[in-house]
Amino acid sequence: MPALGKATIGDLDSLLKTKMPALGIDLGGTKILAAPVVEGRVVGEPLKEATPVGRDKILEKLVAIISAFQKDYVLAGVGIATAGIVDPDTGEIVGSTGNLPGWTGTRLKQVLESKTMLPVHVENDANAAAYGEAHARNLKDKECVILLTLGTGLGGGILIKGQLYRGAHFGAGECGHMRISLGNQRLCTCGLFDCWEAFVAGRGLIATAKEFVQDKTEAQSTLVAKAKAGELTPESVVEAAAKGDILAQKVMRVWHEHICAGLTSLVHTFDPDCFILSGGLSKCVDISLLTELLSDRTLSHPGDKVQVFISELGYQAGLIGAAHIVLDKVATL
Amino acid sequence: MPALGKATIGDLDSLLKTKMPALGIDLGGTKILAAPVVEGRVVGEPLKEATPVGRDKILEKLVAIISAFQKDYVLAGVGIATAGIVDPDTGEIVGSTGNLPGWTGTRLKQVLESKTMLPVHVENDANAAAYGEAHARNLKDKECVILLTLGTGLGGGILIKGQLYRGAHFGAGECGHMRISLGNQRLCTCGLFDCWEAFVAGRGLIATAKEFVQDKTEAQSTLVAKAKAGELTPESVVEAAAKGDILAQKVMRVWHEHICAGLTSLVHTFDPDCFILSGGLSKCVDISLLTELLSDRTLSHPGDKVQVFISELGYQAGLIGAAHIVLDKVATL
Repeated sequence: MPALGKATIGDLDSLLKTKMPALGIDLGGTKILAAPVVEGRVVGEPLKEATPVGRDKILEKLVAIISAFQKDYVLAGVGIATAGIVDPDTGEIVGSTGNLPGWTGTRLKQVLESKTMLPVHVENDANAAAYGEAHARNLKDKECVILLTLGTGLGGGILIKGQLYRGAHFGAGECGHMRISLGNQRLCTCGLFDCWEAFVAGRGLIATAKEFVQDKTEAQSTLVAKAKAGELTPESVVEAAAKGDILAQKVMRVWHEHICAGLTSLVHTFDPDCFILSGGLSKCVDISLLTELLSDRTLSHPGDKVQVFISELGYQAGLIGAAHIVLDKVATL
Repeated sequence: MPALGKATIGDLDSLLKTKMPALGIDLGGTKILAAPVVEGRVVGEPLKEATPVGRDKILEKLVAIISAFQKDYVLAGVGIATAGIVDPDTGEIVGSTGNLPGWTGTRLKQVLESKTMLPVHVENDANAAAYGEAHARNLKDKECVILLTLGTGLGGGILIKGQLYRGAHFGAGECGHMRISLGNQRLCTCGLFDCWEAFVAGRGLIATAKEFVQDKTEAQSTLVAKAKAGELTPESVVEAAAKGDILAQKVMRVWHEHICAGLTSLVHTFDPDCFILSGGLSKCVDISLLTELLSDRTLSHPGDKVQVFISELGYQAGLIGAAHIVLDKVATL
């Protein structure tokens, strides 16, 4: 197989359009992932670095990473997937994110383009993942594809006719903040009550488990001791359920009901072709149970027609998607 | 003023594109409204007729209405706003509606075109109203406009960049069936629990009022006697609140909270430029209270940027919008 992505002398124009890699970068709250992407796949293993603290140090680190890759690759551009609400035209972070304090207001595209002389596209991380997954699954011709990232938080990315739908103020797809209860039951990290995220993201699953163990003894469930020791994690609940712990299984069942509650609202408003579940917790989802619940909790038209998939690209979806957006932009120049 | 819409001999081509009326028809569960529409307004007072029972009788009635208007007007086409999920290409009703039993499966466009020889467009009623209102308010260039009909039920119509967004199976905008609670608190007429409609449409407001009066005496609120007499209506609650009845005012406050719960989810998913509230109950909404609640219950970006309007076209929005869609189609022929 030819070493795709490595610069060669010769047909540069053709390379630019089809074979030249873009650097995909996923900027998370704790780590930065970066890799050249060409024809929908990552070249080699992505670089992993810790996210520095503070806006200036993050910018420095990003410039250093891009420069390092420029030594080995002739890059068509750089695509950055970041938390926060992003204006994709200016590449500015216009809405804050708790994971990257002080990040709002950063003119990321402008800064990086001036320092690297490469075309840079900045995208919300869940949007980038949605774009990457839709490419990977050949879903770009579908009317509507909704990707949801189930992890520490719950993000969303929406594609309509293959294009990212960003809304009037670039705030579309913040699905984690749909309100799924009226009772002021759960306070979300965003400060609002009863956000979907507060029930189905990692913290939400733990909160549900804590409610379930409250009046139970250690003889009734292994989760009780875990909770007392402060060691209740999403993984520990999933593991206990798999080992036959009845209480843990009930927690998992309720977690699926909570996931379904938000999907129900998305079905009745967007009527998507499919949902793609991404993020660390997506592998804990029982697709068959969720599909059954969804069919039961939605109007038969269109509820019975919606498909649910688990991410194919896994943790690389964001960086692959961001790189793809840049490559698609370059291809239309 | 010239008699717009009346056929004149002469510049027929220009008439066809700009001055020729389309007949707008709003087919509701109890009544049919019909009027010629030209340049965004109804010519004369709409005709009102009772909706006959049964598919065949409805079709006969529609043909009779169109034929009657054809005697007075040279029509560019017919636009029909109907309850139910509609395939706008074939004009077939693909998803059922409780208000028009047996209506699903009706090939409305095909039947009417063959009988009237006119271009016919069939559209979901809330979609048609959204299109009509967006025209009337010059909102067609906006990224996203969401119209909600607050009446016996709760419908929705979504415009993205001036075009109706209908979803993968024409089921988008069924906002009344977003799930806003987890408790199986309210059974919706659709058979699902905790649909937004079950809290905010007419029946929902009455259900809330009934919960509030349950343990109250007649001395405490005028609503108690109304409830006992089975005379609790949305209007009676609104009237009592206006007259200073504290309990009725609390019911209205909670009703606004319930409206806000669904709007919150729509803000965080669609990020619209604005909401337009339509339907009989929309005039009971306190826009200033609702805007305040919405700002408080949403992420500041984009929640603080979303506007809320009350319908300008009122009950005529559906027929005007349906007629407009036909006129826009004819104009591009």
